[in-house]
Amino acid sequence: MPLDLTDRFDPDIAARLQDADPASAGGLPAFLEVRITECGAGVLAARIDVTTALLTPFGAAHGGVLAALVDHVLGAVCYPVIPRGAWAATTEFKINYLAPVREGTLEARAEITTLGRRTAVVRIEAHANGDLVGIAQGTVTIRPPTPPTG
Amino acid sequence: MPLDLTDRFDPDIAARLQDADPASAGGLPAFLEVRITECGAGVLAARIDVTTALLTPFGAAHGGVLAALVDHVLGAVCYPVIPRGAWAATTEFKINYLAPVREGTLEARAEITTLGRRTAVVRIEAHANGDLVGIAQGTVTIRPPTPPTG
Amino acid sequence: MPLDLTDRFDPDIAARLQDADPASAGGLPAFLEVRITECGAGVLAARIDVTTALLTPFGAAHGGVLAALVDHVLGAVCYPVIPRGAWAATTEFKINYLAPVREGTLEARAEITTLGRRTAVVRIEAHANGDLVGIAQGTVTIRPPTPPTG
Amino acid sequence: MPLDLTDRFDPDIAARLQDADPASAGGLPAFLEVRITECGAGVLAARIDVTTALLTPFGAAHGGVLAALVDHVLGAVCYPVIPRGAWAATTEFKINYLAPVREGTLEARAEITTLGRRTAVVRIEAHANGDLVGIAQGTVTIRPPTPPTG
Repeated sequence: MPLDLTDRFDPDIAARLQDADPASAGGLPAFLEVRITECGAGVLAARIDVTTALLTPFGAAHGGVLAALVDHVLGAVCYPVIPRGAWAATTEFKINYLAPVREGTLEARAEITTLGRRTAVVRIEAHANGDLVGIAQGTVTIRPPTPPTG
Repeated sequence: MPLDLTDRFDPDIAARLQDADPASAGGLPAFLEVRITECGAGVLAARIDVTTALLTPFGAAHGGVLAALVDHVLGAVCYPVIPRGAWAATTEFKINYLAPVREGTLEARAEITTLGRRTAVVRIEAHANGDLVGIAQGTVTIRPPTPPTG
Repeated sequence: MPLDLTDRFDPDIAARLQDADPASAGGLPAFLEVRITECGAGVLAARIDVTTALLTPFGAAHGGVLAALVDHVLGAVCYPVIPRGAWAATTEFKINYLAPVREGTLEARAEITTLGRRTAVVRIEAHANGDLVGIAQGTVTIRPPTPPTG
Repeated sequence: MPLDLTDRFDPDIAARLQDADPASAGGLPAFLEVRITECGAGVLAARIDVTTALLTPFGAAHGGVLAALVDHVLGAVCYPVIPRGAWAATTEFKINYLAPVREGTLEARAEITTLGRRTAVVRIEAHANGDLVGIAQGTVTIRPPTPPTG
């Protein structure tokens, strides 16, 4: 049963996350073309197309692709339910790889388990083409917005 | 104290890992331009240049960059000490992020803690420009070489 | 959605686990008086009464109580769905503590995520008096039954 | 290389930890008779005698014994290097079991990797009779001392 975070949900932030151009994220998420496909109160899913550019010579996606996606949704799931201007940074996570990913679409879905003022604990399930390929759980540190100075 | 794996060390495999062109790895490691910088009996280090292409708009490398590097060294450290033709696949790991990475060189060093016939446990330390930026520990599943048929 | 393990479920083993006298387990589970309260195909719950004997001078149960319960259900959940005579041993797990436990009943519920011939991945949720107090995920190594000799 | 925490080290707190009667800890540590055997600036070791009372009918210590010891040293290692009156509570850890423990002495040694105002990251190695039997890493949340009121 997911945590009820309806009261804290900011639909504008959620819409901005879902509408974002993957390229605008910059860095690794832009290379992976991570798209946010679901964004609710305490839940967020993101998707990567497993193109041949992501495959190693052995024909599977590198484990780092899933690890990066997990890291991405871990932090992103917090933004619509924390104050505007606050920061969410992954401080730790643990992942179990359950099956190799060879093609199609890789999707990770994060669900907030607990949310405090300074910390959130999040669980993630990743599927590829209908199969569960990884599970993870981790902690996000939340830094409150800096008060304006001057 | 690292495990003594001198007896099982295959220097040819180690040399091949160290001399490999990052681009030849394909997929994510090629994008990240991961270079193996040290490869001994049960230890392996790999390095990434933190170019602006790896930075998010917030000026730091995405957590997935370090996670991918950790995943990479976790499996790679096993190859010089397992039978030729055997496979090493990360099955799980846990990472703690200790500091953001903004520039320079990111290096992860893996050390095998225990090595059995089917499994290895590995610890990793990652540094950027002299600072410890992450620690990890994980498990690798080793699949013995397939016997030739026919 | 839990894995469907109905085909592999051995109700006799499950009944034996549920009817076992906590004292018969010996060692730490006997001290903690761990009782199996649910045992199905790929799911198992176990409970501890948080007596004053388990509290530290600060009035909360030591974190090790929950860690021990997690470790216990991780292995136990496998027995009714692996061959008779096979062994299930926890090889690794990760736990997040979500709230202190001060009184009442502590229950951990394990659910098998994947089950192979040699390994299982398991997730655990722990509740105390209705509150989620911990989540964990881990790996169990399964050793097949030793063939009879002679 | 352990973190240098000499400046923050409070030898009185360290001495109190080392001299404490295991029974005074109460709860699970009292049952396990955990003794602090080393206590320095950012390092702490604790020991348990693996008596027959800790063995399961299969002749090995329950995994929960090591998990509890890991949890114990994770928090305890912080006390001599945080302000008097501050609290250190384990928020998460991950453990890999490397070998069964059947007899003799089980010792876990914790080393602080990073220490901030609100959080510490700690690594642990556990040995039994000279063999490495487990490794762990985890996070401790530090709550500053409550200012006196009135």
